[in-house]
Amino acid sequence: MAFKKIALSNRPAGPLDDDTLKILRDGATTCRRWAVTMTTLAESGHPAGSLSSLEMALMTYAVADLTPDNASHLDRDYVVVSHGHTSPGVYSALAWLGFFDPQEAVAHFRQVGSPYQGHVERDLPGIDWGTGNLGQGLSAAVGFALAQRARGHSGRVFALMGDGEQVKGQNAEARRIAVKEGLSAVTVLIDMNGIQISGTTESVMAADIEALWKIDGWQVLHCDGHDIQALFDVLVEAGRSDRPSVVLCRTVMGRGVSFMEGIADYHGKTVSGDLYARAMAELGGDDQELEPLRQRRRDERPDGRNLTRYPIYLDTGEPRVYGPEKATDNRSAFGTALTDVGRLNEGVAGRTPLLVFDCDLAGSVKVDGFAAACPRSFVETGIQEHATATVAGAASAAGVVALWADFGVFGLSEAYNQQRLNDINDANVKLVLTHVGLDVGEDGKTHQAIDYIGLLRNTFGWKLVVPADPNQTDRATRWALSSWGNTCLAMGRSKLPVVTDEEGRPFFGSSYRFRYGALDVVRPGTDLTLLACGHMIHRALAAREILAGRGLSARVCHAATPLHIDIADLVEASSTGAVVTVEDHNVNSGLGSIVAMSLMQLGRPIRFQPLGVTRYGESGASDDVFAAMGLDVDAIARAAVDCLR
Amino acid sequence: MAFKKIALSNRPAGPLDDDTLKILRDGATTCRRWAVTMTTLAESGHPAGSLSSLEMALMTYAVADLTPDNASHLDRDYVVVSHGHTSPGVYSALAWLGFFDPQEAVAHFRQVGSPYQGHVERDLPGIDWGTGNLGQGLSAAVGFALAQRARGHSGRVFALMGDGEQVKGQNAEARRIAVKEGLSAVTVLIDMNGIQISGTTESVMAADIEALWKIDGWQVLHCDGHDIQALFDVLVEAGRSDRPSVVLCRTVMGRGVSFMEGIADYHGKTVSGDLYARAMAELGGDDQELEPLRQRRRDERPDGRNLTRYPIYLDTGEPRVYGPEKATDNRSAFGTALTDVGRLNEGVAGRTPLLVFDCDLAGSVKVDGFAAACPRSFVETGIQEHATATVAGAASAAGVVALWADFGVFGLSEAYNQQRLNDINDANVKLVLTHVGLDVGEDGKTHQAIDYIGLLRNTFGWKLVVPADPNQTDRATRWALSSWGNTCLAMGRSKLPVVTDEEGRPFFGSSYRFRYGALDVVRPGTDLTLLACGHMIHRALAAREILAGRGLSARVCHAATPLHIDIADLVEASSTGAVVTVEDHNVNSGLGSIVAMSLMQLGRPIRFQPLGVTRYGESGASDDVFAAMGLDVDAIARAAVDCLR
Repeated sequence: MAFKKIALSNRPAGPLDDDTLKILRDGATTCRRWAVTMTTLAESGHPAGSLSSLEMALMTYAVADLTPDNASHLDRDYVVVSHGHTSPGVYSALAWLGFFDPQEAVAHFRQVGSPYQGHVERDLPGIDWGTGNLGQGLSAAVGFALAQRARGHSGRVFALMGDGEQVKGQNAEARRIAVKEGLSAVTVLIDMNGIQISGTTESVMAADIEALWKIDGWQVLHCDGHDIQALFDVLVEAGRSDRPSVVLCRTVMGRGVSFMEGIADYHGKTVSGDLYARAMAELGGDDQELEPLRQRRRDERPDGRNLTRYPIYLDTGEPRVYGPEKATDNRSAFGTALTDVGRLNEGVAGRTPLLVFDCDLAGSVKVDGFAAACPRSFVETGIQEHATATVAGAASAAGVVALWADFGVFGLSEAYNQQRLNDINDANVKLVLTHVGLDVGEDGKTHQAIDYIGLLRNTFGWKLVVPADPNQTDRATRWALSSWGNTCLAMGRSKLPVVTDEEGRPFFGSSYRFRYGALDVVRPGTDLTLLACGHMIHRALAAREILAGRGLSARVCHAATPLHIDIADLVEASSTGAVVTVEDHNVNSGLGSIVAMSLMQLGRPIRFQPLGVTRYGESGASDDVFAAMGLDVDAIARAAVDCLR
Repeated sequence: MAFKKIALSNRPAGPLDDDTLKILRDGATTCRRWAVTMTTLAESGHPAGSLSSLEMALMTYAVADLTPDNASHLDRDYVVVSHGHTSPGVYSALAWLGFFDPQEAVAHFRQVGSPYQGHVERDLPGIDWGTGNLGQGLSAAVGFALAQRARGHSGRVFALMGDGEQVKGQNAEARRIAVKEGLSAVTVLIDMNGIQISGTTESVMAADIEALWKIDGWQVLHCDGHDIQALFDVLVEAGRSDRPSVVLCRTVMGRGVSFMEGIADYHGKTVSGDLYARAMAELGGDDQELEPLRQRRRDERPDGRNLTRYPIYLDTGEPRVYGPEKATDNRSAFGTALTDVGRLNEGVAGRTPLLVFDCDLAGSVKVDGFAAACPRSFVETGIQEHATATVAGAASAAGVVALWADFGVFGLSEAYNQQRLNDINDANVKLVLTHVGLDVGEDGKTHQAIDYIGLLRNTFGWKLVVPADPNQTDRATRWALSSWGNTCLAMGRSKLPVVTDEEGRPFFGSSYRFRYGALDVVRPGTDLTLLACGHMIHRALAAREILAGRGLSARVCHAATPLHIDIADLVEASSTGAVVTVEDHNVNSGLGSIVAMSLMQLGRPIRFQPLGVTRYGESGASDDVFAAMGLDVDAIARAAVDCLR
């Protein structure tokens, strides 16, 4: 089977020559055979949408400056497939263009161990963003475009979308960001086959798709989505626009296989036996290749691929040391460190660009200083958290460090699924949650994020740092900006004293180095251990004084990284034989629960008492709320005494 | 201070008489004083937006058939305040209309123990939906309108919104549902003050608000948002439309206090001292009331109020017993039970209406049978999960049972924050997640919900049932439909054999009664306990056979309600001295972690080994995925042996 990369990225507009047209048309038919065959072999997958999107995928990858040679580089075009279930068509197009062996893709579609997963994933070259949950792809494209602009590269970004997913609200958010930021590099192709799982798009949930894009300021183009020349022309035309462009592609569901055309059922139904043979015959092939491919599926284990990570070059400057004479909120310490790093790096050759995102809370979340110092690196996205989470995620996977600061309930509770997808995509987002816990106070229960540990614990890649005071916040901020990976910094709202050592010097002072995983042993003690998280360290230290008055010696430790506590540190911390965890977080899902699981697996007899939030919070002054919710200093001391009983 | 309820709900259109106009205009000024004073006393809150929305709130509550007398009834109008931070204005309007003592509201705003919280909450009469996280209020209004229609009541539903939140994508989703369902009962008033926290709405994130509502099919009206007569006229006009209506209200941020007008800073800034006195003087009062109110704030503790729950009247019919001869997927057993209950109750006088929501997956999530049997009770909302979650939540709090079935990643991971707000609102949603765990198989990691226990664990009210087999699914479905509270049923995709007792009869047979919290002791054993959840019970039972072959006696228990396991049952289950938890869920955040925390607090020496998912899943046939991820029968048996070492 002959195939070759047809690179059209530098072709001028106008008619393609007959040879090229024939090669591409034949290629589309070949791809159709592969797409149907892989779903038949897997007995699973989405054939009909793959066929309606097929020329869209083929021509986009043919036109894009994205090749097997440059797919792991940064300076190139990007392609996002938002309707990730059309993977059979996408894999076929990529294989035909030389990204990988087509037989391998066909043989191992939706098979354990294979990179040819049910929904497209970044494991494969040519796939820039793993999708599957609909409605996120456009946001990812916007993120890639912002990253390229920040990097000074002028490449294009393409997004392929389905028509059913057009009604997801996140798309409208992403459209507005693209227009506000003037991202003319973005070209979207929508597969307007008119059919979704439950019937026609018109009957399931009608929307005037053209008008929606127009009103938000996009150039809207139209095209026969199965016409190679028309797709080439419209892709070239979109590239000349000074606005982002969307192409509404008229297509036929199941195109090319007569009995699939226009039938909603083939959204997720595969064919076998006679129907398969008929499909192959209609596509100019036969069913003779099926058995050898089935054999290959049984006999061979394809290798999973690895995601591409890019090095970060940022000068994180000199740490700032906050003295004990003054209380500072952690969010201000974060903001100051961020501005320091911004100033040190913006415009310096060879440095990784830093983009900071804000959802209309810059002053509260303390990125206003950065915005003033580095306005070109500051992106105001309005009250649009779902899109912002994905935009930041995709940008962070494409050569910039992307930081988004927001209240805990907006940055994580509201955008949890987007942050989960950022994790699956091995992105590099820095998520700073400035208002977490009951400490938020008067804004009340809807605004008190007491789930951020419990939420991120459901992911496998996210790191979480909950700093104890302004000094640790400063160090953790500089560390996070310069280390790869999705990292969340969570902090409360209140001004906090500096944590000091027994001599009254800053505990996280000039000699302190942040190490992810380490427990901070803030005070020694022999009778029990108070293990606190974040701003609760101050209440734990005060409780230690009360306990001392009763003749009890409490060790006080701080868990800055509750998701990943070094086990040796935990063993040492719990060597008092009694552990009381103290957290401004739902007691069922946070630090206490994590520590319990570790201690339980250690199998040692340790007295254990978790202290945390046991109901939705009150609205009131922060200290009053802690008292009402049983988390004030006296309550901690009482819990410690109870634990020793 | 004189005030009285001005009921305008039955007034004909046209000019209000001069007395009424004067009373209302004076009332608005009085409310302004109260609104500013309460933020001054609390030293916290949002004065300027409260002042711009003030006449909107006052006139809406005056026109609505919602009074202190009927606020806890079902047959009335409903009002949703989407921009919940305008609570000072809303509380003032409600107090002026006689819903509660204005002095109490002013004295105890944002104080611990008080129902006058920072963002409006359902604790108070007149507040139908607690908000605070922006962009959800319109969806709640749509839910109330659907509930009223299902109940056969023709009341109106009003939503007050801010202009900054217009760009949240969830609004677009809700707009489309309202139009598709023909909800002309819904009237929305938008406070178009043009200013949000970071500056003008135009500069922060521009949107053509009028065009967005028009395109989605709404009637758009305009009004001076501070003109009592104009607001009355437009509210009457909107009530006559055969389409849902939105009123764009031209307002001035901070209206009535000269130095606040048009100043973004007063979004969240309060005044004191001379500025407070000046504000009072401009509002026709003085600052003499402040000190007595401050005294009252110190001396008195207002009572929190309770949320209103409504009884459920549903005939849940006779359970179906599935025999051991045939494998059935739990989702089909759920769908059959749901259709049974639908058929038994639809159209029967005195029964609580049942509404079933679907996001374009009816066939997969098995609500297609219900849709065919009870088409008037079936609501297809398209691929719009955020809105659907809130719509179902609000409907469930207003006299209907609302059930939403979806894949786990869409119904919960994507809509987590909406489900958190449903919990805060003490709603009555039945959330059925039909595709959870690695069991989803080929669709791969983006579709495998391995976080549903870990997510709901962050809430305080949600109940969770993970049935073992079709029989338990049938019983749990009937139980959930007839019990108050947000309840999630989670199940995998695969067909499952029926769990049998040692004689081969259905374990959850005709004599079984579902009890929330109970552990199911499926097999006796003395050496260790396999504690499984959901479909993993089958693998645990098979592992027991392997262990028996090695001379080990394994007790097998099933935890159908992992969030709330009766402690006595857990003590008994763990009396073997060794517990291996087995779950198709992230091992860090699910059953194992919950059991560890309970056992740790019991303080007994028990060997413990949690078995679950330790990385994002593969794409492949379900059994292959379990094997590759270390969760097949052999792996369970090995873990059990290791635990005893």
